[in-house]
Amino acid sequence: MAKDLPKHRLAALDAYWRAANYLSAGQIYLLDNPLLTRPLTPEDIKPRLLGHWGTSPGLNLVHTHLDRVIQDRDLDVLCVWGPGHGGPAVLANAWLDGSYTRTYPDVTRDAAGMRRLMRQFSFPGGVPSHVAPQTPGSIHEGGELGYALAHAYGAALDNPDLLVACVIGDGEAETGPLAASWHADKFLDPVHDGAVLPILHLNGYKIANPTLLARVPRSELDELLRGYGHEPLHVGGADPLRVHHDLARALDTALDRIAAIQREARAGRTGKARERPRWPVIVLRTPKGWTGPDVVDGEPVEGTWRAHQVPLARVREDPEHLRQLEAWLRSYRPDELFDAAGRPSDLVLSCVPAGPRRLGASVHANGGLLTRALPVPALEDFAVPVDKPGSTLHEPTRVLGGLLAQLMRDTEQRRDFRLVGPDETASNRLQAVYEATGKAWQADTLPTDEHLARDGRVMEVLCEHLCQGWLEGYTLTGRHGLFSCYEAFVHIVDSMVNQHIKWLGTARGLPWRAPVPSLNYLLTSHVWRQDHNGFSHQDPGFVDHVLNKSPDVVRVYLPPDANTLLCVAEHVLDSRDHVNVVVAGKQPCFDWLSLDEARAHCARGVGVWAWAGTEDGTREPDVVLACAGDVPTQEALAAAALLRRHLPELAVRVVNVVDMTRLLPAEEHPHGMRDSEYDALFTRDRPVVFAYHGYPWLVHRLAYRRAGHAHLHVRGYKESGTTTTPFDMVVRNDLDRYRLVMDVVDRVPGLSVRAAAVRQTMADARTRHHSWIREHGVDLPEVAHWSWSQ
Amino acid sequence: MAKDLPKHRLAALDAYWRAANYLSAGQIYLLDNPLLTRPLTPEDIKPRLLGHWGTSPGLNLVHTHLDRVIQDRDLDVLCVWGPGHGGPAVLANAWLDGSYTRTYPDVTRDAAGMRRLMRQFSFPGGVPSHVAPQTPGSIHEGGELGYALAHAYGAALDNPDLLVACVIGDGEAETGPLAASWHADKFLDPVHDGAVLPILHLNGYKIANPTLLARVPRSELDELLRGYGHEPLHVGGADPLRVHHDLARALDTALDRIAAIQREARAGRTGKARERPRWPVIVLRTPKGWTGPDVVDGEPVEGTWRAHQVPLARVREDPEHLRQLEAWLRSYRPDELFDAAGRPSDLVLSCVPAGPRRLGASVHANGGLLTRALPVPALEDFAVPVDKPGSTLHEPTRVLGGLLAQLMRDTEQRRDFRLVGPDETASNRLQAVYEATGKAWQADTLPTDEHLARDGRVMEVLCEHLCQGWLEGYTLTGRHGLFSCYEAFVHIVDSMVNQHIKWLGTARGLPWRAPVPSLNYLLTSHVWRQDHNGFSHQDPGFVDHVLNKSPDVVRVYLPPDANTLLCVAEHVLDSRDHVNVVVAGKQPCFDWLSLDEARAHCARGVGVWAWAGTEDGTREPDVVLACAGDVPTQEALAAAALLRRHLPELAVRVVNVVDMTRLLPAEEHPHGMRDSEYDALFTRDRPVVFAYHGYPWLVHRLAYRRAGHAHLHVRGYKESGTTTTPFDMVVRNDLDRYRLVMDVVDRVPGLSVRAAAVRQTMADARTRHHSWIREHGVDLPEVAHWSWSQ
Repeated sequence: MAKDLPKHRLAALDAYWRAANYLSAGQIYLLDNPLLTRPLTPEDIKPRLLGHWGTSPGLNLVHTHLDRVIQDRDLDVLCVWGPGHGGPAVLANAWLDGSYTRTYPDVTRDAAGMRRLMRQFSFPGGVPSHVAPQTPGSIHEGGELGYALAHAYGAALDNPDLLVACVIGDGEAETGPLAASWHADKFLDPVHDGAVLPILHLNGYKIANPTLLARVPRSELDELLRGYGHEPLHVGGADPLRVHHDLARALDTALDRIAAIQREARAGRTGKARERPRWPVIVLRTPKGWTGPDVVDGEPVEGTWRAHQVPLARVREDPEHLRQLEAWLRSYRPDELFDAAGRPSDLVLSCVPAGPRRLGASVHANGGLLTRALPVPALEDFAVPVDKPGSTLHEPTRVLGGLLAQLMRDTEQRRDFRLVGPDETASNRLQAVYEATGKAWQADTLPTDEHLARDGRVMEVLCEHLCQGWLEGYTLTGRHGLFSCYEAFVHIVDSMVNQHIKWLGTARGLPWRAPVPSLNYLLTSHVWRQDHNGFSHQDPGFVDHVLNKSPDVVRVYLPPDANTLLCVAEHVLDSRDHVNVVVAGKQPCFDWLSLDEARAHCARGVGVWAWAGTEDGTREPDVVLACAGDVPTQEALAAAALLRRHLPELAVRVVNVVDMTRLLPAEEHPHGMRDSEYDALFTRDRPVVFAYHGYPWLVHRLAYRRAGHAHLHVRGYKESGTTTTPFDMVVRNDLDRYRLVMDVVDRVPGLSVRAAAVRQTMADARTRHHSWIREHGVDLPEVAHWSWSQ
Repeated sequence: MAKDLPKHRLAALDAYWRAANYLSAGQIYLLDNPLLTRPLTPEDIKPRLLGHWGTSPGLNLVHTHLDRVIQDRDLDVLCVWGPGHGGPAVLANAWLDGSYTRTYPDVTRDAAGMRRLMRQFSFPGGVPSHVAPQTPGSIHEGGELGYALAHAYGAALDNPDLLVACVIGDGEAETGPLAASWHADKFLDPVHDGAVLPILHLNGYKIANPTLLARVPRSELDELLRGYGHEPLHVGGADPLRVHHDLARALDTALDRIAAIQREARAGRTGKARERPRWPVIVLRTPKGWTGPDVVDGEPVEGTWRAHQVPLARVREDPEHLRQLEAWLRSYRPDELFDAAGRPSDLVLSCVPAGPRRLGASVHANGGLLTRALPVPALEDFAVPVDKPGSTLHEPTRVLGGLLAQLMRDTEQRRDFRLVGPDETASNRLQAVYEATGKAWQADTLPTDEHLARDGRVMEVLCEHLCQGWLEGYTLTGRHGLFSCYEAFVHIVDSMVNQHIKWLGTARGLPWRAPVPSLNYLLTSHVWRQDHNGFSHQDPGFVDHVLNKSPDVVRVYLPPDANTLLCVAEHVLDSRDHVNVVVAGKQPCFDWLSLDEARAHCARGVGVWAWAGTEDGTREPDVVLACAGDVPTQEALAAAALLRRHLPELAVRVVNVVDMTRLLPAEEHPHGMRDSEYDALFTRDRPVVFAYHGYPWLVHRLAYRRAGHAHLHVRGYKESGTTTTPFDMVVRNDLDRYRLVMDVVDRVPGLSVRAAAVRQTMADARTRHHSWIREHGVDLPEVAHWSWSQ
C-alpha cells in the first residue's frame, strides 16, 4: 500500500526520468555528440528540427512510475500512449529498458547506439516522429487523436491478468471518440477482463490553445469523471520530487483499488446484485514541456503551448539557442545517468523491470504472437440447400448468425472472439449469437431486459468509434472479431480505418511483428434496402474509401447470397493482417449457389454463371451481364431471364464478382487478375453491362486499364433515394432489370428490328412501375413475386 | 416563474399532445379513414408499415410544452430534434400548427389534408420517414445520430435573441460527437449568442438495447451533466398529467435561469472576472412508445425497445393487431381533438403559437431567408505581386489569412462570419485573423493566454465533429463560415459531410427553401508536407469521398499558388448551397500567376500555361504535362524546365487544373467540360502525364470517358510516406520532376536516341537524392534552391 517511497528510490526514479528526458530532447536535436562529451557545435545539430517535445516529459514520468509498480507488484502491463506524437519519449524508454536493442540489435545500448537512436529520429531513412508500428511495445499510433481509451479497453477485454494503462492527453480528451470512450467502463467485466487505468494528463495546452479540461474548476472535472463512473485521483505540480512522490502514492492507491475490485468480483460474488465498480482514474497535471527551456526569445515556453513541438527552433543558426540547448541538455546531468561508454548507469537501470515485463517488450503489443487459429465451424452445418438456383430465399446475415453462434460456443472457454456493433446485431439479423453468449453490460438492468450479461462477448453501444476502437485494440493484441454495421454509417469510422490500415500496412513490413487477426466488417442494412430510413441511410462508398489504401491490407467482398456469404466469412474470420470489408444483405435474397458451388465461386472471386447465360461452349457472347452485390445480382439475373425470353438469339454471358479487387490489374493488387484472365471472362470487345452494388465509377476506377474498358457500362447507386419500395430504389438508380435490358439493346450492334420493340416493352414496364407504386405503395406483382426458376 | 399551471391549461396541453400522438400513429398506419369515422378495416392500413413510433410521443410532449412557453414568453425558438427518425411527430405538429399547410398548401388542415398527411408518410412518392429537408422548421435530418447538439450550438451563435431547444435521445447520447458536444457550452457567449437548452430524453432504449445514460444512477448522471458545465432539471414518469405539470415547471425554471444569465451578462458585466454560467439542461424520462400498445403477442412493448419502430407489425393480416391498433388510436379520443371536418378543435388550437413563432415556421430553419451577401474584401489588397512566374515564394494560407482578417473586421458588427478549426488556425498560418477577432472562449484564462475572447469569432476545439456541426448549424441558419482543417483528418467528418451534402442536395429541389451559404473547407497541412508528422497525417482522399456525392452540391478546387487561392476563396466564401473543398498548402510555394492571371485562370478552372510549355501557336504538343495542386504543379513545372533544357525539340504543353470537376463530362457535373473543350486542352491522342495532388486513380475516374483517356498517365499519392524531406515525399510516390521526365520519355514515340541518355540522367538524379538525404537529412541543393525563373 501507499507508503512513502524511500529517498534512494525517489532518487533512482528521478535519475531514470532525467535520462528519458535527456534522450527525448536529444532525439529532436542531435546528429552527433550524444553524450555531450564536448561542447555542442552547430554541426552536432540536425538540419531539420522535427518532433514533439511538449508531451514527452509527462510521458517519461508515467513510464518511470509504471516501471516502478511493475517491479513492485510483478504486473503485466500494456501502455497505450494517447499522445503518441511524443514519440521521442516512448523511444527513449524502449532504449533505456533494452527492449529497443532487443528489437533492433543495431541500435545498441551504448554511445554508438545512442547516437543512432538520436540521429534516426525523424530523419530520412530513420524512424517516424510518432509512436508507430516500428515502436516496440506499442499498439497505438499517436497520429490521429481520439482512440487511445477505446484501444486500451479493446486490449483489456478477455485479458484478465493484464493492466492496460492509458495516457490521455487533454487535447485528445476534447475529441468525440475519446469523450464517448469513457463510458466503456460499463462494458468491462472485472471477472473475465483485465483492468484499464486511464491517466488523464493535463499539461494544459494543445498546439496553440489551452485545453478545456485544464480550464474548468477541479470540482467540475471531478464531477465529470465521476459522471463517467470513475473515481479520480489527482497529482500535480512542477516540483519533480513532490510529483514523483505523489504520483507513486496515487498509482499505489489506484492499483490497490483495482486489485480489490477484481478480487471481490472474482471471489464468486457475481450475482446481479454486484455493484458496478468505480474504477480509478489518475489526473496528472504537469507543465507542458516540463524541464525544457523556460523562456525563449523573451517568450515563456515551458508550461505553454509554445513547448508543443521544438522549443528552440534556430539552434543551428542562433548561438543563443545553441547555448540554451546545451544548458537544457546538461541540466539533466548526463554524466550521472550514463557511463563513459554511453550505457545507462546502474541507478537508472535499477528502475527497469525484468525482461518480458518491460513495457517495450510486452507480448500483447505484438499480439500476433498470442494468436490462436480461430475454430470456424464447418459450413456444412449452416449452408442452405440449393437444388436449383433462384428458387428459394434466405436472409444471408441470418444464416451467418447461425455460424457465428456456433463460433461463440466454440470459443466460450478461449474467449478470443468478439462481435461488436452499434446496437444493430439483432437488426442485422445475427441474433442467433444470443443463444450462445450475451451482450456485455455492467450497468443497471431491468426484468424486461434480454441477453444482457456481465460476461457477454457481443459488444453493443451506439458509437461506431467505440466499436471500431475496441476491435482494433482486441485484434492488435491477438484476438479475433467482427464488426457488424449499417453500411452507410461505417463512414463514421473512415478516419479510424485509415489509420488502422496504415498501421497494418507498415507492420507487415516489420519481420519482428507477428501477423495479427484481420479487422472484419460485415456491412449490411445496405443502400438498396433502407425501406424504413431512406436517403440518409444510403451510402455504399466505404468500399471506395478503403480501396484507396494499401492493397496488401484491403480486401472487399460482395457475396451475392447466403452460401457465398458463409464461404467469405470462413475465409476472412481466420485471416491475418487484413481489413476485410464484406457487404451482404439482411433481407430475403435468392439462393443462387449450393455450398460446393459457392466454395468454388468464392475461391475464384469472379466467375461465369453458365447456367444463367446462354453459354453453350461454342459461341462467344454478344454481351456480358456482370454483377456484384446481392441486389444487383438479382436484377442482372432477372435481366438475363428477360433477354432469354424476348431476344433468344442473343448470346448472353453472366459474370458474378464476389471479390472486387479481382478487377484490378495483377500488378496493382495481390488478388488482381492478369489481362488474359480478365479478357477471358469479360471479352476484349463485347459490351459489358455491369450492375454494381455501389457507386458505378468505382468499377471504372478498377478496370480502366483493361482492353475492354471502352465497352464497359456500369450501373449502380447514384445518390437517388428516399423511403420507398425495394424495386423503386433500383429503378430510381437505373439498376433495374428493365433498364439493364434496355442498356443491352442500346449497346449490342446489329440486333434485329424486334429489339426496338423489346426496348419499348421494358420502358413501358418502368412507366407501369411508377404509377403502380404511387397507387399501391408496394412493388408490381411481376417484380415482387418474380423468381429465376419460375 | 414556475407557478402551477391552471387545470384548463393542462387539459389543453394534454389535448394537443393527444392530437399529435394520434397523428403520429396515424401516419405510420393509415392509408384512409384518418378520423376513424368508421371501424378500421385491413384496407385502411398501409401495405408496408414503416416509421418510428418509439420516440414520437416524447417529441410530441416536448413540442407541446415548447409551444406553451413560446406563447407565454413570446420566445423566438428553433428546435433541433435529435431523434429525427421520429419524423411522424414533427410532421404531426407542423400540420397541427398550420405551418405544414403554409409550406405545402395541398396538405390542408382538414380531413382531406389529414388523410394526405398520413398516406404520404413513408409512402412511394410521399415524404421520408425522418425529419428531413422537406420538413418545415427543421435544420437537422434525423438519420445519422450524433450531431444534434453541435447543430443547436451552431444555430445559436450570433443569434442573441434565439432560444435553440435541442432534444437529445439517449441513444444519440452514446455517440462520440454528441459526447464531445456537451463542452460547447464553454464557447457560447451569453452576450452575443443565443441560448441552447438541451433536453436529454431518456426513454431508456435504443433499437434493441437499454441506453447507458438511462442505466446509471441518477446521482451519477447528475455528476456527468454538472461535469459538462450544466445544471440538470429532472422530469419523469408515465402519468401524463403529472409529467405535463412537472415539465412545465422545469421549462419555466430553465427559461428563467437562461433569462437571468443573459440579463446579467448583457448588463455590461463583461469583464474577465465574469463567471462562466451553468446553463440548465432538462432530463426527461418517459416510456419509449408511451401511450402505445402495452403488450403485443404477449410481449411487453410500451416502455421497451420493442416500441422502437412499428409496435403492431401485422395489422393487415392479424385481426387482433387490427383491433389493438383501433383501440390505441381511439384511446386519444380523436372526436374531442378534431371537428367533423377534420380540423383541430379550438382547445387544440389554443396551444398553437402565433404565425412566425410556430416551430414549423421558424425563419431560422429556412436560413437562406436571413442570409446577407458576404462583403468579401477586394483581392487587390492582399494579392502578391508576380512580375515573372516562379521567382518568388509565399505561403498561400498566410496570404489568405490577411483577407480573412479583413473579412472579420468588415463583419464585426454583422457577426455573420465564423472561422472554425481543430486547434489549427495558427498552425495553418491563418493567424492574421487574430488581429481582427479572438478565439471564442468562456472557460478559465491565464495571463499567458493569447487571443482568447468571450466574443471571438474563431472557434477552436480539438474536435472536428464539433467544428463541422457548428458550421453546419451556423450556415443552415443563414450565416457564413470556413472550416480550416488538416487535410488527412477531415475524414473524421466524412459521414457528417455525407449527410450535409444530402441535405443540401435535397433542399435545392425544394422551392420554398432559400439557398443557404455553402459549407467551405480549407484543407491544408496536406499530404506532401507532413514533415513533422509523417504517414499518419497523409491522406488526400476527402476529394474522392465528396465526389461520390451530388454534383449539384460538390465543388473541388486545388489552387496552385497564393493568388489563385485568393480567387478561389472569393468565389466560395459568398456562394450558396455548395460544399466547397479547397486544398492549398501552408508552406512557401512559388507564385505562378499575377492576380489578373489568377482570376482568368480560376474563371476557366483549367487552362494551358503557355509560358511554361513550348507553345508557339504553330505546333501541336508532343506531350501534355498536366498538374493539379501546389506541389504537383511545382514538380510538373520543374519537369517542363528539364525537358526544355534536355530535349528542346520536344513540344510540351503545360495544363493546370484548379477545378477538378472540370475534368468530368458536361453531362455529369455543371462544371464539366464538353469533349471538344477537353480535347482542345489535352488532345485526343498525345500522351498526357498528369501530376495530381491525391490518389492518381481519381483522375481516371473523372476522365475515363474522354477520347484521350487511353493516353492518360497519372502520378499522385500512393500511400508511401513517413517523416522525411519534402522532395523525398514526391520521389517516394513517383511524382517528382525526374520521374515525370522519365514518364514523358517512356511515352512519347519516336524520340531521338539522346532521350535514353536523358532518361538515365533523371534516374541518376533520383539515386543521388536517395543517398544524399540519408547522409544530410535535407534535400539536394539543386532541388532545395530550384526556381523556375533561375
